Amino acid sequence: MQSIDGVSLKRVLDVEGIKKNPDELVIIEACVHKIRTMSEFAFVILRTGRYIVQAIYEKDRCKASIEQLKVGAYVRVKGHIREDERANLGFELQLEDLEILSMPAADYPLNVGHKKLGCGLEANLDNRSVALRNPYERAIFKVQEGVVSGFREFMESQGFTQVHTPKIVAAGAEGGANIFKLDYFNQDAFLAQSPQFYKQTCVAFFDRVFEIAPVYRAEKHNTSRHLNEYIGLDFEMGYIDSMYDVMEMETAMIKYVMNYLESHCKEYLDLLEVKLPIIKDIPSITFVEALDLIKGRGGKNKYDLEPEDEVLLCEYAKEHWNSEFLFITHFPASKRPFYAMNDKEDSRFALSFDLLFRGLEITTGGQRIHDYQQQVDKMKEMGIDPEELSHYLSIHKYGMPPHGGLGIGLERFVMKLLDLQNVRQASMFPRDVHRLEP
Amino acid sequence: MQSIDGVSLKRVLDVEGIKKNPDELVIIEACVHKIRTMSEFAFVILRTGRYIVQAIYEKDRCKASIEQLKVGAYVRVKGHIREDERANLGFELQLEDLEILSMPAADYPLNVGHKKLGCGLEANLDNRSVALRNPYERAIFKVQEGVVSGFREFMESQGFTQVHTPKIVAAGAEGGANIFKLDYFNQDAFLAQSPQFYKQTCVAFFDRVFEIAPVYRAEKHNTSRHLNEYIGLDFEMGYIDSMYDVMEMETAMIKYVMNYLESHCKEYLDLLEVKLPIIKDIPSITFVEALDLIKGRGGKNKYDLEPEDEVLLCEYAKEHWNSEFLFITHFPASKRPFYAMNDKEDSRFALSFDLLFRGLEITTGGQRIHDYQQQVDKMKEMGIDPEELSHYLSIHKYGMPPHGGLGIGLERFVMKLLDLQNVRQASMFPRDVHRLEP
Repeated sequence: MQSIDGVSLKRVLDVEGIKKNPDELVIIEACVHKIRTMSEFAFVILRTGRYIVQAIYEKDRCKASIEQLKVGAYVRVKGHIREDERANLGFELQLEDLEILSMPAADYPLNVGHKKLGCGLEANLDNRSVALRNPYERAIFKVQEGVVSGFREFMESQGFTQVHTPKIVAAGAEGGANIFKLDYFNQDAFLAQSPQFYKQTCVAFFDRVFEIAPVYRAEKHNTSRHLNEYIGLDFEMGYIDSMYDVMEMETAMIKYVMNYLESHCKEYLDLLEVKLPIIKDIPSITFVEALDLIKGRGGKNKYDLEPEDEVLLCEYAKEHWNSEFLFITHFPASKRPFYAMNDKEDSRFALSFDLLFRGLEITTGGQRIHDYQQQVDKMKEMGIDPEELSHYLSIHKYGMPPHGGLGIGLERFVMKLLDLQNVRQASMFPRDVHRLEP
Repeated sequence: MQSIDGVSLKRVLDVEGIKKNPDELVIIEACVHKIRTMSEFAFVILRTGRYIVQAIYEKDRCKASIEQLKVGAYVRVKGHIREDERANLGFELQLEDLEILSMPAADYPLNVGHKKLGCGLEANLDNRSVALRNPYERAIFKVQEGVVSGFREFMESQGFTQVHTPKIVAAGAEGGANIFKLDYFNQDAFLAQSPQFYKQTCVAFFDRVFEIAPVYRAEKHNTSRHLNEYIGLDFEMGYIDSMYDVMEMETAMIKYVMNYLESHCKEYLDLLEVKLPIIKDIPSITFVEALDLIKGRGGKNKYDLEPEDEVLLCEYAKEHWNSEFLFITHFPASKRPFYAMNDKEDSRFALSFDLLFRGLEITTGGQRIHDYQQQVDKMKEMGIDPEELSHYLSIHKYGMPPHGGLGIGLERFVMKLLDLQNVRQASMFPRDVHRLEP
């Protein structure tokens, strides 16, 4: 019998610690990112999970030779710190010993060591396990992690409970044909198009909930803004007075996330050469007002906004209200799901909103119906059989507070935040109509 | 145009704030949990997302009548605080006004207001949206949230990056028949049995990663410990010297989670009448030693452990080593997946481990093969065509550090932690062979 005490943990490179004790002999485990051989010495550029460390190899001062060394090898090196303001971390490493832990079987097919890969999107995605070794590419996912952490931290600060709801479901929340079907022990089952039914259910007992989880849409659109599997940042809150309570919560959350990124992800934002949007207030206009604004320029569809309309509206908001975000409210009820509450003052419109950011819809939300009879009636009006959704309707039957919520597409948000041209760049391993691997 | 400033957020009940300002007029939004009518007055027990608040209704002191009020209604009440040590929060509320926000259409089919529901598991699961309104039932998921938060906080403290990897995949990581198949635009696709391939891929560029996400197993077993969709707590770390580095990390993580629960989830643990296990060191024995220990009592299978064996081994560990956790290492290589590294000293065994907790396996982990040729050879030995996993093999081809990791089944862990009899009780909306709803 051995004892595992959980105390002698392997540590990772701690730059702050190194800077405080510059005389210490440092051990670093890393991947060889680049080698530049000079006449008298060589630069061995090391890549850890977070840092790029510049090491100096001199034959006379290092016990091991670097003759066998190549880019892509994983090594454990020992060395002394030399302060150097030109180095990105403020120091470089004078190598004293070097051990090769693992050698690659082939050279990288992409320019991992360059600042940017410089290849096309298809080559990037086809060789994703290599592309993400490029510091610029991986930085995207440190920012993504920051968005998720900031979202979570904010929701928790507001009394929301984090939940995990099933993705294999008996019925889709959004209806329509864009749903993946699977064989579930000889029953028909589907992949959840959103956690809608379940997050509403949770409001009945937790008042406020959020979820960070995959969402599936069998969209056949092969565009720069569609993914077939993405991460949804969802929340749902009880006791709202109107959908504006949900919009207030989202606005506060986005402000919080921007501050979080500023304080936690500065190095990645700098690497990506990104300036975060400054958010004060977010303007909000109705769907009808929106159509009016773009009359003559776009807006051929009278019942929904086209992607081109969203671009025009965002240009308008930037120009006139100095905002890169724009809420659109009161969409035609016929274009919103059956659980959306209709506006009492004009039932042709739903108490439903989108949030646009830099020309793209990143959120859909609104107030939901909480009254049982009202929900049954609206289902019937829309040609949905209440019997088929009896489990969902049980939440209304046994009582729900007035409530609302929203869903944010994480990859779309990150795409626009980082000014990426294609949403696939904001997904580590994107799924689209043609891409199931890697 | 309206402006949404994200400042005037709706607040939730703040018990600490109330206690500090006992003279304030308090507004609470809540569900009517119980009503007890006495001769002169009535107790109206209110349930918020977190608290049970006792309110006193007296006809002469409250503007509104409670005649229409019923259990399950959602209300907004106004009242003054009266300190009362007998009340669970240390105060009760003297009602001055009451507004009904929403009325249920039917009475609860379960005893939501009782301490425990007192119904069978099937009735509980069939009426899940009601069952979870019971404070005891919902407390399970506050503890579950605590486990997830503690896990995440610990992993972040150790330099792990949180990742999100696809659940629609082209090939299963575990092989075998227990995989769900779906139609993906006329291609065959599957639901991920684990994030194995992807978390290994991420080690190549982030060194250390973790993921909290659904995992799918098309297990036909209908037992008290199987779910077909569950939440996997996964991590994977580079630069390990052996699988014991992974086991050290898990041990430290579990200790951290227990402390986290103690400081964040005390009220829920008390309600559930649960005492957390005290963990010092976790004993670790090899598979062969384990078979020896249970010889004559169990252990009919010489190549794997049966559920009964796991129970016997945990009893032994509790009795002899005073531990409710037990690591088993060095499983027969033939019973472990193709990516498990074989023991150099005896290649019949894999550098692979399980963690047992109170009689149940909650973790499988180990050291993975990082060398390209070694992985190709092992695939061939096990009858797997390397061509079919070429995307996965690209991570070895272009280089990987020595690495290992593990996966924990969240619901199993919580089940054992809370001494629940069935893993379905630890899943909000469980999926099993027969259950696809709610």
